[in-house]
Amino acid sequence: AQDLHHSCQWGSGIRWGDGPTDTGMQRLALSEDDKSVRDWFIQTMEDLKCNVTVDEMGNIFAVRPGRRADAPATFIGSHLDTQPTGGRYDGILGVLSGIEAIKTMNDLGLETEGGVGVVNWTNEEGARFPVSMISSGVWADCIPLAHAHNLKEVPTVASLPTAASEPETMKSALQKIGYMGDVPCSYKSTPMAAHFELHIEQGPYLVTAGQRVGVVTVVQAFRWFRLNIIGRDTHTGTTAFEHRADALYAFARMMVRAREVAAAKKCLASVGIVEAKPGSVNTVPGTVSFSLDIRGPETELVAEVEKELRTEFDAIAAAEGAGIGKPCRVEWNLEFDSPAVKFHEDCIDCVQQSAEAVVADEPVADTKSLVRTIMSGAGHDSVFTSKRVPTSMIFIPCKDGLSHHPEEFSTAEDCATGASVILQAVVRYDRK
Amino acid sequence: AQDLHHSCQWGSGIRWGDGPTDTGMQRLALSEDDKSVRDWFIQTMEDLKCNVTVDEMGNIFAVRPGRRADAPATFIGSHLDTQPTGGRYDGILGVLSGIEAIKTMNDLGLETEGGVGVVNWTNEEGARFPVSMISSGVWADCIPLAHAHNLKEVPTVASLPTAASEPETMKSALQKIGYMGDVPCSYKSTPMAAHFELHIEQGPYLVTAGQRVGVVTVVQAFRWFRLNIIGRDTHTGTTAFEHRADALYAFARMMVRAREVAAAKKCLASVGIVEAKPGSVNTVPGTVSFSLDIRGPETELVAEVEKELRTEFDAIAAAEGAGIGKPCRVEWNLEFDSPAVKFHEDCIDCVQQSAEAVVADEPVADTKSLVRTIMSGAGHDSVFTSKRVPTSMIFIPCKDGLSHHPEEFSTAEDCATGASVILQAVVRYDRK
Ligand SMILES: NC(=O)NCCC(=O)O
Ligand SMILES: NC(=O)NCCC(=O)O
Repeated sequence: AQDLHHSCQWGSGIRWGDGPTDTGMQRLALSEDDKSVRDWFIQTMEDLKCNVTVDEMGNIFAVRPGRRADAPATFIGSHLDTQPTGGRYDGILGVLSGIEAIKTMNDLGLETEGGVGVVNWTNEEGARFPVSMISSGVWADCIPLAHAHNLKEVPTVASLPTAASEPETMKSALQKIGYMGDVPCSYKSTPMAAHFELHIEQGPYLVTAGQRVGVVTVVQAFRWFRLNIIGRDTHTGTTAFEHRADALYAFARMMVRAREVAAAKKCLASVGIVEAKPGSVNTVPGTVSFSLDIRGPETELVAEVEKELRTEFDAIAAAEGAGIGKPCRVEWNLEFDSPAVKFHEDCIDCVQQSAEAVVADEPVADTKSLVRTIMSGAGHDSVFTSKRVPTSMIFIPCKDGLSHHPEEFSTAEDCATGASVILQAVVRYDRK
Repeated sequence: AQDLHHSCQWGSGIRWGDGPTDTGMQRLALSEDDKSVRDWFIQTMEDLKCNVTVDEMGNIFAVRPGRRADAPATFIGSHLDTQPTGGRYDGILGVLSGIEAIKTMNDLGLETEGGVGVVNWTNEEGARFPVSMISSGVWADCIPLAHAHNLKEVPTVASLPTAASEPETMKSALQKIGYMGDVPCSYKSTPMAAHFELHIEQGPYLVTAGQRVGVVTVVQAFRWFRLNIIGRDTHTGTTAFEHRADALYAFARMMVRAREVAAAKKCLASVGIVEAKPGSVNTVPGTVSFSLDIRGPETELVAEVEKELRTEFDAIAAAEGAGIGKPCRVEWNLEFDSPAVKFHEDCIDCVQQSAEAVVADEPVADTKSLVRTIMSGAGHDSVFTSKRVPTSMIFIPCKDGLSHHPEEFSTAEDCATGASVILQAVVRYDRK
């Protein structure tokens, strides 16, 4: 927990309390602050006698060798980048639990069959470059390297310290901070025996039930879109409603409808980014661009919500401007598609057994009830590693289920529990 | 018409056709392009033997002296700034008709009792600095000079060539282009006998009825607000709808409701600017800021729409986040208030008589039917001059009633008609 906050000195975000660690984090991927924490991470791992490599997506792999030099290492991985108004736990906890595991193994002189590694994946958040988990996606050969390298940053985070005047690509951002490594970004060049990830739940189930550990078995599906609505710029003071093709009004109706449609299918639909042009008080916006994030427990459900919204949005667009024979129109661009995932039984078993062992000393009658299986609502790099190697995840509770918010918080005790579980899970897996 | 397009070489905007003049305009107030057209305007007026002065708001006054040196001049005025996606007529036509009038008077050797002036008012559009007609407002002593000087530019026009990285104030922008004059900005320092303004209608009435000239008798009321919605940032993938205080969803409901409430009272309500923070695909926006422009034919109606929307918006905010006991809240800031205006009988009479005289040769039976009285839906600098001196306006038709759009268009014939009417109106007024 000491180290966790230590690593948060680079990129501290919004302050919400008086204590030294009462701030959020604002460490966008490949920013100067991200460079600083990466430098620190490498130094720390080298001090712990790990071999460090950096690949073409800036992913950093640090391996503590095992007895068998030829066997791939079992990895603990997560990410050090954050949301623009992020907290101190999302991702950071996962990487720091890896460092703790290596430290503990060194202290105990513990030998493993294969090596044990820690990986920091680049731009997991998808906040600066709007495809989440993109670098584990390239590693898993699910996203082409060129697509990732050419991806442009979101201009609306332009008020943040990382921003240049022209939107930067991932490639130029990697080069700028010196983290374009020479190892190919691929599961073939950097193989793994397995991938484990510790994360805060980011939702309310564990904390509400008073449970200590979530054994993550599945991750819900999600799709990200960028939509454009094209209407007509016109004067706000002289243009009757019937004569407007108001792209922002159409957007407002779409957003209201998106929640209704998603809720009816027990899915989620959210807009995080909206840009209305030309952006003048007395001009009806003729162009609106916005992000749409649809999620649901099954891939098929997400597809159904998308289908229904395509029909509904077309109807809303057609109605706005019909009076002048120049209706709005709406364009959809799929930016990211992450089908539902089931994690690997072997990894799940290791986590389940480790979790039960760690909570066994708790002062309650039925300690097993402190551990539950759980679905992840958020995506994680484990989604992509699971395409290539056995993978699973561990959740710990977080306050109010709140994440992507400066006040995101987990107790030091819960963080320590999670770190113990992941260490045990890795050792168990290595011994299988 | 030649001169009108000549003056559009500085700041041409979006191209919509192949012809040399088939572009819109993008000449934000006090930009480099605005400086260029101002320099040209001053040179042109000096070449026409006018005396030019510039006041502390950058308003430029050019006077052709009359017989009586002590009598204040009768002015023709409008503005050379445009919307970010503006056209070639809004404002520009009015200033250019003033230049034409002076040229014609010089050519004819016409002497007047008082002088005749042309004024270019600064930032009429309210696009870059979000208070429209602000500089005629200071001149009329309706807006304090310090308030105007400290007004900040809208950051969302930051992608435009005029923008600095820190939002600029009107004062620094005036100084930067060298248009902070030394004459006090006041109707006392620069008195006028009267103010006439020629403008495109910006609405569909004249063009739909096939009428040639609108004699503007009244201007509708409008109020501009900046509203902030404060909710809670949170994760889009892990936060159920009931657990959200989604400021952008609240905004969407407000915008939909605003149209319903305004329509029921035969008023308008429009949103031109919206900013959602933090602006990340997978974070529910915790903060939204937006502009609201309410208009109606009577001051009282606008107040009623505002009152109803305050109640409705509070209810929408209270509902969003109620499930977590942290509802959104909404703040209103009044940025500009322009009550309904009635123009001066004497000026209206001069315009009516001039219009009838100008259209008298048209090949229709009842030429008087080509002229009608009309309300202005938009605000104009004449709103503020009317507080201090007799004022009225002339409208000519524009294609599709379209304005604040690059394709804004009036025929050369209609522009010439308008220019003839304003010249005659000024001469008639001078002779009264
Ligand atoms: N864990 C997390 O916040 N990941 C970001 C990707 C997502 O939006 O689910
Ligand atoms: N004429 C014009 O477009 N003026 C801008 C002020 C307004 O929004 O009415």
